[in-house]
Amino acid sequence: MDKQKAIQDFKALDEKITHFQSISGLADWDQKVMAPKKGRAQFAKAIGTLRTEAFKISISDEMGRLIEELNSDSVELDEMAAAQVRERKEQYDRFKRIPAEDFKEFAILTAQANDAWEHAREHNDFDHYAPYLEKIVGFRRKFAELYGYEAHPYDAVLSEFEPGLMVAKLDPIFAKLRDTSVTLLERIKKSPNQTPSEIFNQKYPIDKQKEFNRYILPIIGFDMEAGRLDETVHPFAQTITIGDVRLTTRYLEENVRSALFGTIHEAGHGIYEQNIDPKYEGTVLAGGTSFGIHESQSRFLENMVGRSRAFWSYFYPRLVEYFPEQLANIGEEDFYRAVNTVEPSFIRIEADELTYNLHIMVRYEVEKALMAGELEVHELPAVWNRKMEEYLGIIPATDREGVLQDVHWSFGGIGYFPSYSLGNLYAAQILNTLKKEVPGYEAAIAEGNFAPVMGWLKEKIHKYGSLYRPNELIVKVTGEELNADYLAEYLEAKYSEIYKLS
Amino acid sequence: MDKQKAIQDFKALDEKITHFQSISGLADWDQKVMAPKKGRAQFAKAIGTLRTEAFKISISDEMGRLIEELNSDSVELDEMAAAQVRERKEQYDRFKRIPAEDFKEFAILTAQANDAWEHAREHNDFDHYAPYLEKIVGFRRKFAELYGYEAHPYDAVLSEFEPGLMVAKLDPIFAKLRDTSVTLLERIKKSPNQTPSEIFNQKYPIDKQKEFNRYILPIIGFDMEAGRLDETVHPFAQTITIGDVRLTTRYLEENVRSALFGTIHEAGHGIYEQNIDPKYEGTVLAGGTSFGIHESQSRFLENMVGRSRAFWSYFYPRLVEYFPEQLANIGEEDFYRAVNTVEPSFIRIEADELTYNLHIMVRYEVEKALMAGELEVHELPAVWNRKMEEYLGIIPATDREGVLQDVHWSFGGIGYFPSYSLGNLYAAQILNTLKKEVPGYEAAIAEGNFAPVMGWLKEKIHKYGSLYRPNELIVKVTGEELNADYLAEYLEAKYSEIYKLS
Repeated sequence: MDKQKAIQDFKALDEKITHFQSISGLADWDQKVMAPKKGRAQFAKAIGTLRTEAFKISISDEMGRLIEELNSDSVELDEMAAAQVRERKEQYDRFKRIPAEDFKEFAILTAQANDAWEHAREHNDFDHYAPYLEKIVGFRRKFAELYGYEAHPYDAVLSEFEPGLMVAKLDPIFAKLRDTSVTLLERIKKSPNQTPSEIFNQKYPIDKQKEFNRYILPIIGFDMEAGRLDETVHPFAQTITIGDVRLTTRYLEENVRSALFGTIHEAGHGIYEQNIDPKYEGTVLAGGTSFGIHESQSRFLENMVGRSRAFWSYFYPRLVEYFPEQLANIGEEDFYRAVNTVEPSFIRIEADELTYNLHIMVRYEVEKALMAGELEVHELPAVWNRKMEEYLGIIPATDREGVLQDVHWSFGGIGYFPSYSLGNLYAAQILNTLKKEVPGYEAAIAEGNFAPVMGWLKEKIHKYGSLYRPNELIVKVTGEELNADYLAEYLEAKYSEIYKLS
Repeated sequence: MDKQKAIQDFKALDEKITHFQSISGLADWDQKVMAPKKGRAQFAKAIGTLRTEAFKISISDEMGRLIEELNSDSVELDEMAAAQVRERKEQYDRFKRIPAEDFKEFAILTAQANDAWEHAREHNDFDHYAPYLEKIVGFRRKFAELYGYEAHPYDAVLSEFEPGLMVAKLDPIFAKLRDTSVTLLERIKKSPNQTPSEIFNQKYPIDKQKEFNRYILPIIGFDMEAGRLDETVHPFAQTITIGDVRLTTRYLEENVRSALFGTIHEAGHGIYEQNIDPKYEGTVLAGGTSFGIHESQSRFLENMVGRSRAFWSYFYPRLVEYFPEQLANIGEEDFYRAVNTVEPSFIRIEADELTYNLHIMVRYEVEKALMAGELEVHELPAVWNRKMEEYLGIIPATDREGVLQDVHWSFGGIGYFPSYSLGNLYAAQILNTLKKEVPGYEAAIAEGNFAPVMGWLKEKIHKYGSLYRPNELIVKVTGEELNADYLAEYLEAKYSEIYKLS
């Protein structure tokens, strides 16, 4: 066996798939952000063709043969090559089980489902979206059977987003998170020291919001020469290459927080990708290592940084310059407390740090039931509303504010949502280590210097791309495996102080 | 032989290549219009991979076998299938001669050369661009040898843009066009009845220009739900699908004509593509039939329509509303004469209808010499300037205004420029027929009704896509082969009237 030749051939295949994904990533972004209406249906077919081609290469006989050759005990690979083989092997083993025709049909379906979802959301018309969603659930259930699983069909799709994640592991973690959250929420509701959230009940002109969002991005570490910021119904971050990472946000005149924290959140994803070591460019390693770790970076930037005293110590005086009328007579401390208002609400991406996880519980439970065949798509709106009432005490008046709010299912991402709460758990654990290793980071932020915190994240997490598995990485960074206590402690400490809880 | 199976397989391959080209078209557009700087070099590699893949399919053994099977006398194909086979066969026969490695290298080179050209143009630095251009010329000469040719190496690349076009055919046509243009130009220069072109020596605010450009596009027939208008250094039209055709233009405060006629020109290309019969979507026929015919549509809309009395009879009062200060006290007739000012100038895309063809002569002759190895890239600026003086009587002060002005060479389009003058020739011939068949079209335009003229073009030309060859199409539309007299007659009549020549 010619090992060097095998490595070379493997790397060429890896690069080809990566190139195709880079381009289909751009194509997706374009359809959501730029493309005119009338071309979308036809272009969805073209994207389907490209995805199918990448898919075929990733499960080709050549790929199988090379993985087998390079995965043998007798072959020693450097750390990078070994990680490339590991990632492609996982995909190969998973995708090999899906018939090419199903894959293509699924790719076309999800491209079209995005349009259907946008339409349904705009017109509050769940029935318009339901037939697409039914097909998507059908495919995901079929894929779960094809992937195989030990205990629960949901396990099979969960591990697409977080390798090794299972219902058996999540159920107790999420149950605990739910219980502590509900208890803390009750204490907050009863507190006589409520936050002055009414300062957000004003109009904040959209052009000024845009300017402010563009102003903060480079300061917090997002490189505008290696990315863009655009607008979409549902904010997202899309990597084209390490040097081209695109964010979107959504401006609402009556809700200045929406774009602001949405942008910071997506910037957390984007900075992670921009900071990956360029030596991984064009390989499967040129991306975040899991959805959970990715969300840890976006949620960290949005909440642990973006909703911190230090952050607003620097940015609040600047924000006042953009909105002098709206913020007249409002002090920095009041503003800090207001951005940390805890209040049950309908829209997940605008939820506070505490109730956010309860939104995830709703999704986790309905996805689990959909995958198990215990829930039908047409029952979703009713079940969604019932769970919202149970966990958050509120019922959405419309599906637009309820089951139709999120884009994820339209691209087939059943199994994605748990990553958000996992991201919150990781983020709190990472924060705990950061505080020990970079004690001056908050003082620097208060001076507008994000280099200590972002530099640390880059060195510890970002630059590695997908070199390490999420479970390896969290141990490497924090010295221990996922520990759900940190988030509970963080939330207890933060809100006890803000709401002056006893 | 199973004919149905062969047709089905052929159509699937045709569709796959079309899908890949649709996506690489989007990728090209994005790099020029949207992409941030830092990602471009890496993304150029990804585009190279995609193009190479499409190229490989177009010259695959399977394609060769299917073309051979379907091209046989014993197989009867419907008109559409026969045209698809004809187009793919021509590509197969041409591309089959180019080694895959050359093709990939050329694709990467041209993606990078676009950036180099943009930089060189911006900084008036021909030397920065020269190494890329040398490589591009080297490739084009190599391709000419591989394609083969009878008389002149330029013939081999000319026919990429206009099937069957040759130096032996062009030389006499262009010589005659040059002579009549130079003579007419001399008469115009001596006319005592010059046009009031000084009305353009004013500033026209860019935001108002943008509004006006967006205002006219749908009226002249460009469907904004099936396209976009953006900004680039060099205006172009890019088809993604029939339902997604994107135009770009360039706004100059001190030159209102630049964006205006640039937009109308690109709209001519765009409307052609938007009007193609949807049944050709996803096939090789879903595009204009040649560059010459394409330019006939853009030049027709820009000049025969956009610089006509009827056009400004409708739009001039509207233009005055956008620019009341600039156009105060200027009458419609003066404005009409001013937009038809003949004056030697440096920039081709801003040239008047008459001198335009002389710009093409400069390019035609240097390209011919480059392809014959009679001219080196480093000699280009000097030769360019000498020819400009010879034909137009003016010398560019900088390469930015001279040899660096056009994008075409950076994408490898040596052989493209003659299509522009060919387009002018076709356009005048088409106009002659239109006048006979739709006598009321000008009266309709004067009322803002473009349906008669655009509907006729759609029915006679646009809807067919590439079903007919350019030489077949021109006969089908006008009843005769390319006849260079119509353009000479058109120019003579138009300018005799405007300049009151004797």
